[in-house]
Amino acid sequence: MSGSQYLGREESSSSYTYGKRTGWRRFRALNICRGMYHDVRRRLPYYWSDIRDALTYRTIASTIRMYFVNILPATAYTLDMYRRTGAFYGINEALFSSALAAMVFSILGAQPLTIVGITGLISLFNYTIYDIVAMYEPAIYSNFMCWTAIWAAIFHWIVAFCNLCDYMRYVTDFSSESFGAYVGIIYCIKGVEELVNEFTVSSPTAGFLSCMIAILYFLSIYGLEWLGSSTVCRPWFRGLLADYAYVIGTIFWVGFAHIPGNLKETGISFVPISRAFYPTQPRGWLIHFWELEVKWVFAALPFGFLIMLLFYYDHNVSSLTAQARQFPLKKPAGFHWDFFLLGCTTFLAGITGIPMPNGLVPQAPVHTDSLTIYETDLHVIPTSEGEGAELRRPIVKATAVVEQRVSHFLMGLAIIGTMTRPLLVVLHTMPAAVFAGVFFIVGWGSIESNGILQKMVFLLRENRFIQRDEPLLRVGRRKIILYITCQAFGVAACVAISETIAAIGFPILIIALIPFRVWIIPKWFNQEELDVLDDLTADNSAVLGSLGGPPRFPGTEVTETEHYGLERRYSEQIRGMARQRVGSIHR
Amino acid sequence: MSGSQYLGREESSSSYTYGKRTGWRRFRALNICRGMYHDVRRRLPYYWSDIRDALTYRTIASTIRMYFVNILPATAYTLDMYRRTGAFYGINEALFSSALAAMVFSILGAQPLTIVGITGLISLFNYTIYDIVAMYEPAIYSNFMCWTAIWAAIFHWIVAFCNLCDYMRYVTDFSSESFGAYVGIIYCIKGVEELVNEFTVSSPTAGFLSCMIAILYFLSIYGLEWLGSSTVCRPWFRGLLADYAYVIGTIFWVGFAHIPGNLKETGISFVPISRAFYPTQPRGWLIHFWELEVKWVFAALPFGFLIMLLFYYDHNVSSLTAQARQFPLKKPAGFHWDFFLLGCTTFLAGITGIPMPNGLVPQAPVHTDSLTIYETDLHVIPTSEGEGAELRRPIVKATAVVEQRVSHFLMGLAIIGTMTRPLLVVLHTMPAAVFAGVFFIVGWGSIESNGILQKMVFLLRENRFIQRDEPLLRVGRRKIILYITCQAFGVAACVAISETIAAIGFPILIIALIPFRVWIIPKWFNQEELDVLDDLTADNSAVLGSLGGPPRFPGTEVTETEHYGLERRYSEQIRGMARQRVGSIHR
Repeated sequence: MSGSQYLGREESSSSYTYGKRTGWRRFRALNICRGMYHDVRRRLPYYWSDIRDALTYRTIASTIRMYFVNILPATAYTLDMYRRTGAFYGINEALFSSALAAMVFSILGAQPLTIVGITGLISLFNYTIYDIVAMYEPAIYSNFMCWTAIWAAIFHWIVAFCNLCDYMRYVTDFSSESFGAYVGIIYCIKGVEELVNEFTVSSPTAGFLSCMIAILYFLSIYGLEWLGSSTVCRPWFRGLLADYAYVIGTIFWVGFAHIPGNLKETGISFVPISRAFYPTQPRGWLIHFWELEVKWVFAALPFGFLIMLLFYYDHNVSSLTAQARQFPLKKPAGFHWDFFLLGCTTFLAGITGIPMPNGLVPQAPVHTDSLTIYETDLHVIPTSEGEGAELRRPIVKATAVVEQRVSHFLMGLAIIGTMTRPLLVVLHTMPAAVFAGVFFIVGWGSIESNGILQKMVFLLRENRFIQRDEPLLRVGRRKIILYITCQAFGVAACVAISETIAAIGFPILIIALIPFRVWIIPKWFNQEELDVLDDLTADNSAVLGSLGGPPRFPGTEVTETEHYGLERRYSEQIRGMARQRVGSIHR
Repeated sequence: MSGSQYLGREESSSSYTYGKRTGWRRFRALNICRGMYHDVRRRLPYYWSDIRDALTYRTIASTIRMYFVNILPATAYTLDMYRRTGAFYGINEALFSSALAAMVFSILGAQPLTIVGITGLISLFNYTIYDIVAMYEPAIYSNFMCWTAIWAAIFHWIVAFCNLCDYMRYVTDFSSESFGAYVGIIYCIKGVEELVNEFTVSSPTAGFLSCMIAILYFLSIYGLEWLGSSTVCRPWFRGLLADYAYVIGTIFWVGFAHIPGNLKETGISFVPISRAFYPTQPRGWLIHFWELEVKWVFAALPFGFLIMLLFYYDHNVSSLTAQARQFPLKKPAGFHWDFFLLGCTTFLAGITGIPMPNGLVPQAPVHTDSLTIYETDLHVIPTSEGEGAELRRPIVKATAVVEQRVSHFLMGLAIIGTMTRPLLVVLHTMPAAVFAGVFFIVGWGSIESNGILQKMVFLLRENRFIQRDEPLLRVGRRKIILYITCQAFGVAACVAISETIAAIGFPILIIALIPFRVWIIPKWFNQEELDVLDDLTADNSAVLGSLGGPPRFPGTEVTETEHYGLERRYSEQIRGMARQRVGSIHR
């Protein structure tokens, strides 16, 4: 890969701005399709290199890792949806949906790094809508979901045409950390529910075995990833551990559950499968959406709007994190075009009765990570203790990213392969307990690396052991407490609402954090404090190119993206980059 | 505590030497009772201060911590012995034995810091002898054990009279690390056996629940102790965690096993109890040892000798580690007198048919630790990165030890209290699974902190990240590998023999490591290498006073104890003292 051919990124990205526009052209929403046009114009020249650049080992490692990281949670959510939507969504629907998304976004997407699939939140949506519909008329569920998707698709297209993705540039870590913590907590709750389910549908024996497997699965993956980020053994060996922790852990514990004797006899439950390539329910792949009464068609409209809101935040944030500044990306982004594509997949998912795919928040940055070439450098810091006592720190640096669309495409092919009978049988060997473990590891990853928890730990630490140049020391303790309390309040509200029938309203809460950050937070914190506490989620300058330039927060004269993220940059300077673990958001 | 009154330690300890003796008096074994006489003469003046000094909070914290740390493994081993000796040794015998040992050693012991109780190795001995006796005549087991103990007691007294404990000064980390690793592995194996037993005697449900409880118990204690040694929260809070990790963890998980519903209904097994103060078997407390045939009396002699060998190593090493150099002890040691007392308790244990108590290797240093007043100092190391980037390291320092005999005595009283019916019923609420967890946490503690594992990790680490002043770098990699291979070979041989009927022979293997270190190892390693790799276990100069002066290894002209332990001192200099976790040997 020669660097010169990508020099165009900054150039072309500067063409999509509104700074010099006057009259009605100043209003972003009125410049219909302008964002989409520029997205395609910027990215199309790189299409051939997206295929040619893929000829490296990293593509293979990435394909295998992403296959596991994508399919495991998707299957896990499907188990949940299957039980709670009257067995409407089964494993075949989930695989079809994941495969469809992978094909569309790897071939047509402007940013093929963003992995699209089935999230926990769409599963929450689907079964909450089922609960609501079942109060009136359970039989119309499939048609109702179809119309919800059709409305959602229409809203997607409106957003894409009107360049509304531009407002994603105002997303900061204030809301995306809250969202990450919320997603992490939901994952952990799902893990517990999965285990509780084993007690009720199988037996206490199966339940306790499942708890044991889930805990040990969690510990195995956690331990392997921890070892992968240590300084033990050779770098190539650590790289293998980081790449294949999921593969090793999953194969081992699936095998463990099948050992004859006490283990096999417990009757723990496995992934339920049905006839390959057919819907789980006795129906065709096309939903007869024209058979729904008109009153229900319009009742589906607000649900469609809420799904669009969810995807607007969820998909775009996952795309942002997949292109975070920590990754040395050279090829341009394309938010408007990708959101238009997401409208198309939502529509297709609707009329075929499969779960609607969207950007996977915890997994998207893992894809970029798996394609990143890391180098661990030695950083020697002389100390006052003389020769020999120098500190020798490993500083991990990302030197390049293999930006291409082949790993995403191959992963999609692998998912299509999984839809065939032989591999479906392999999937059937997986105990539900392993999925509980997946929930825990992904959920905890999202919580552990979360800025909210990091700031809490900072507050708990004994002051005298904190290095004096730590940026958080420049902010008063009370201000930090106020800041994380605001975040925690948002998280708590979302978690609480998710446990009720009003669960589908949570995107409003999440989206509401953005204007809260823009208008309310600056009244309580001054610019210096926010420089330390907050950080732009859309911090990659080339990403901002696709969003029509950097954000302009009220009260600040100049827009300097370099201002933000003092805390993150400080941490990178000391410890180097943290390798992306599944579930960890942003850093 | 004023320091001046203890100045006598070094003075009085110098009175017991053999350097200036001539003629037959040069031979240590011929100076009958000389060691015991000096032990008592040195320690007696401190008796009143041993009571007076106890009036501090640390005594209470120590009593509670040691009660749990002593009684939990003792009960765990008793469960094992109970099953494997035809229900001869039950919980009443175990409590009686622990109480007897605590009373004798707290009131009469020259070094009341050494906690004496029931170890895993005596349980191994007891059931192996049962297996052997059962081949001929199971009915004579009680009398046979009694005679074994009588012979063992006689050998103890001979060792004490002839000052043979002096040879403990040749014990180095070479053998005591091997012993620690061996004990750790045996503990872990016992934990697994305890869980397997749940599957066979109860049900798979109980088995899986037990596995879950054991794993989570392990993780809780480990997590609490890890938190206690971090820099989070205030020092007093961390101190509480370190003191009461076992109390918190045990109470929580015992309660957990009693939650009504699925948990309570699994029928996991609890500690079996019988009528308070009565032997488990229908017999009196006095064994009718005079009813044993003479041939069996003499058959018991070699077994008694092996028990003495075991206790010689086990008890004295636990006493050494309880008085390691890291603890700033001011009062003198007394190995000969304590070994004489151990002979007495062995005799009493024999004729009452209770398990023979001896020094608890993993727990003894924990007692001293629980009585140590630690201070966490801030160590600021300026680096080349300028102001604010100084490293701020916590360096833990032991400032004083509350040396007294009251905590040991109160712990003994608490054990006697546990022998009454009401507290016996409380003991009965404890599930066997918790004990499996105890085995894991104590066993893993012994393995994790072990020098063998530490050297392995050193070998695995990437060379460029190792600080240049690390002493191990001065030794060739092959030499390190050879050294730990010798140790690992000793450990493997002991573990292997423990699983056979020849298990009672393992003390010979352990003891054989001492002459191996003295005569063979110096042929393969030069003095500089041994200075780094090895360390005297009896490294406290005042301890060496009770052992008749520092050791004189063949081939070395001068005996400078300061030579040894470069590696340990390097680690202390950088990280400060590691607080003693249960199970961790030496450091």
